[in-house]
Amino acid sequence: MQNIKAYIEENREYYINWLKEFCEIPSVAAQNRGMTESVTYLKELFNEAFDQSPEVLETKGYPVVFSHLKGTEDMTLSFYNHYDVQPEDPVELWDTPPFEPTIIGEQMYARGIADNKGNLIARLAAIHAIKNVTGELPINIKFIFEGEEEIGSVSLPEFSDRYADKIQADGCVWEFGYRDGDHRLQLSLGVKGMLYVELFSRGANTDLHSAQASIVESPVWRLVWALNLLKDENEKILIPGFYDDIIPLTEEDQEMIEHYCLNEDFLLDHLDISNFVNGLEGEKLKVKHIFEPTCNICGIQSGYTGEGSKTVLPSKAFAKVDFRLVPGQDPEKILRDLRNYLDDHGFTDIGIRSFTKEEAARTSPNEQITIAAINTIQASTNEMPNVIPNTPGTGPMFELCQKHGIPAVSFGVGHFASNNHAPNENIFIEDFLEGIKMMASFVFHFKDEMEKREEESYDKAKR
Amino acid sequence: MQNIKAYIEENREYYINWLKEFCEIPSVAAQNRGMTESVTYLKELFNEAFDQSPEVLETKGYPVVFSHLKGTEDMTLSFYNHYDVQPEDPVELWDTPPFEPTIIGEQMYARGIADNKGNLIARLAAIHAIKNVTGELPINIKFIFEGEEEIGSVSLPEFSDRYADKIQADGCVWEFGYRDGDHRLQLSLGVKGMLYVELFSRGANTDLHSAQASIVESPVWRLVWALNLLKDENEKILIPGFYDDIIPLTEEDQEMIEHYCLNEDFLLDHLDISNFVNGLEGEKLKVKHIFEPTCNICGIQSGYTGEGSKTVLPSKAFAKVDFRLVPGQDPEKILRDLRNYLDDHGFTDIGIRSFTKEEAARTSPNEQITIAAINTIQASTNEMPNVIPNTPGTGPMFELCQKHGIPAVSFGVGHFASNNHAPNENIFIEDFLEGIKMMASFVFHFKDEMEKREEESYDKAKR
Repeated sequence: MQNIKAYIEENREYYINWLKEFCEIPSVAAQNRGMTESVTYLKELFNEAFDQSPEVLETKGYPVVFSHLKGTEDMTLSFYNHYDVQPEDPVELWDTPPFEPTIIGEQMYARGIADNKGNLIARLAAIHAIKNVTGELPINIKFIFEGEEEIGSVSLPEFSDRYADKIQADGCVWEFGYRDGDHRLQLSLGVKGMLYVELFSRGANTDLHSAQASIVESPVWRLVWALNLLKDENEKILIPGFYDDIIPLTEEDQEMIEHYCLNEDFLLDHLDISNFVNGLEGEKLKVKHIFEPTCNICGIQSGYTGEGSKTVLPSKAFAKVDFRLVPGQDPEKILRDLRNYLDDHGFTDIGIRSFTKEEAARTSPNEQITIAAINTIQASTNEMPNVIPNTPGTGPMFELCQKHGIPAVSFGVGHFASNNHAPNENIFIEDFLEGIKMMASFVFHFKDEMEKREEESYDKAKR
Repeated sequence: MQNIKAYIEENREYYINWLKEFCEIPSVAAQNRGMTESVTYLKELFNEAFDQSPEVLETKGYPVVFSHLKGTEDMTLSFYNHYDVQPEDPVELWDTPPFEPTIIGEQMYARGIADNKGNLIARLAAIHAIKNVTGELPINIKFIFEGEEEIGSVSLPEFSDRYADKIQADGCVWEFGYRDGDHRLQLSLGVKGMLYVELFSRGANTDLHSAQASIVESPVWRLVWALNLLKDENEKILIPGFYDDIIPLTEEDQEMIEHYCLNEDFLLDHLDISNFVNGLEGEKLKVKHIFEPTCNICGIQSGYTGEGSKTVLPSKAFAKVDFRLVPGQDPEKILRDLRNYLDDHGFTDIGIRSFTKEEAARTSPNEQITIAAINTIQASTNEMPNVIPNTPGTGPMFELCQKHGIPAVSFGVGHFASNNHAPNENIFIEDFLEGIKMMASFVFHFKDEMEKREEESYDKAKR
């Protein structure tokens, strides 16, 4: 590994340049910007790095860029990443142009650099370094880069069924990864699911002088009342049956949550808030963060939102709401329950448009890939990772991995203040380089653990 | 009057041109656009029309353009209008550029043409025509044109106290006026009051990935819950004491509301709605419209409001809310009650920024100015006006008139679908010309009624 690490260090500017070039492409899937350019860029990068063109697998939406690089051993590690990013809005709150990657001090700033281009490039770089130093790959490597993660991976379920054989692997390194405030690496073993909906309401056929509000129904009041039905002030989600199907925590979950570290003071200070929801702290806060579902308003708009006062009765209103789901919860069922609930309370006039529908997923802490990741991180950082049963975030891990029996883990180059989905998204340059080295090292650790398992199976069979 | 009406008809293009020029100025007070240009334009217009410069009376905000034109009789009629307009947003819903007055068919479209530039110009034109045809004015005329009506006439109370002598009059023609769907003229005898507030809420110091919504409080949820406290689904406003000070309806009010005509079917059809709030109709609907206060959300915004889905926990949220008030209600008291109410329910974190604070006002149907207006409208249109005890809209009538004992009435050149405060604001060209003629006629009717009253007083004194 030492010569691979040295190679990575020698080529640091080369890999940083890959990252810069990739982050210059405004690949906002929600707004269909820069998507074709991203695919073209990735094709060129694969050709440059591996002398091999990736497959561009068409879906109903944006294509998946797929590559299968053959290794010497017959075992397979896959990497799932995405080339799309969140919209850069509100752009006025950025200190640097979102699509002009800019280094300030030790950090590089750009939309998508943490979520998820830094990781995507770091993993390509790791495999490139192994191949260039050793002349071969120790195991088979598959790259699965989708273009719709930030819009709910809407085409991925169909893709995953259609290409079940192609994407099969012994383990998958999932897209993201972060460091805590004390620089300790997180290792996530799963994701929450999601139901993303837009609720909308219409009133008269035009905005009206607000004097008319005396007799003409207001769509924004209707929306506010409907939203109020969804969650109470104690964060309890009020849709009937919402919590019914949640799989209870196991002893293993309880144990993991005890070891999981959430630096409350640091986070409060960093976000400039005085307390967490419901005044929670300690174990209860961690359980809420990791194991409980959410109902969040991502956006709401109606009427006049400019300076000063304008007296208008708006003609329409909408709110975007995401529910983060936990294992056992079915987004389709919750969507139906939501519709029925609004109807039962007289809100048949509130329309629902659904976007992301994803189930939660988790990997066992006893899987080879988990052990390999822990070993890699311990060897590289001299401390145990902060192991999280699942991230509070979401991804199509259920569709792409769990459904096919592929265990998946997440660790990578971001940090606790990477500002994913927010202005001034960033990573530390040294975390990026360290991440490349760690991922190269992980490939060998994974191979070792898989071989151990095979030997154990063989021994068992012999006995 | 016939020669005055003929003069107006001969000069129709001249007066229409005044209106066009004035509507080209984007005098949006809320955004401090075109305000100085408006004052300059009005000065030039007064000089052109009356060979006399108006006074530009400074206030804490935008100045009041004031003119006192001497007449042969010692009685005074004032005209209150405003040269500011509402913002043109949402501009994409306009069929023509808001500040390029455009004639399509029988209507002219422009921001502010109905509210309130059409009336302002019509009244100037009426006085101009009288003076040019008769060589004199029968009574004293005062013009009071303010520049802050659309932002709540915030400087007018102080102005009205400071210039109490200057603005004194025997009656005032108030700024607005409309025709019903059947072209019948409305005559309004008052206005509702208003309290306009912005409620705002802050969370973390930056927008966050919405996975954080599990533990970080959401300002938009706080805002939704706070709004929900203000009004229930049956339109009942829930601030304690809100209805307590309302002056009960008199028999005169009841009688007026019986005669007041609200064309429900026409309005439902025009607005493309299936029913009014609470399914009201008939007397109850009219009472709600004219005599009851409102709580309306003019605008609300937080987080991501673009296309598709973005999963973000917003860092701030705000809503703009207007309460239309009725006689007896004090906006200052309601503002205090609102603050206490939110505090009492744990919403000390919701900030309140107040804008307009205006009390309601009403003029008696037995005043000379009311009788003169009814006589004028009957003579001009051959039917009784639709007399409304007060408009559901708001204006500083209390400050400028009622406080000084000046009775005020409203009639003018707009119509039921003038789209005030909304896209495609418009008036009918012929309503504008008819409005000029009617206002010229009104000056003489008002003089007659005032003289009758003086004679009656004299007779009484003699007896």
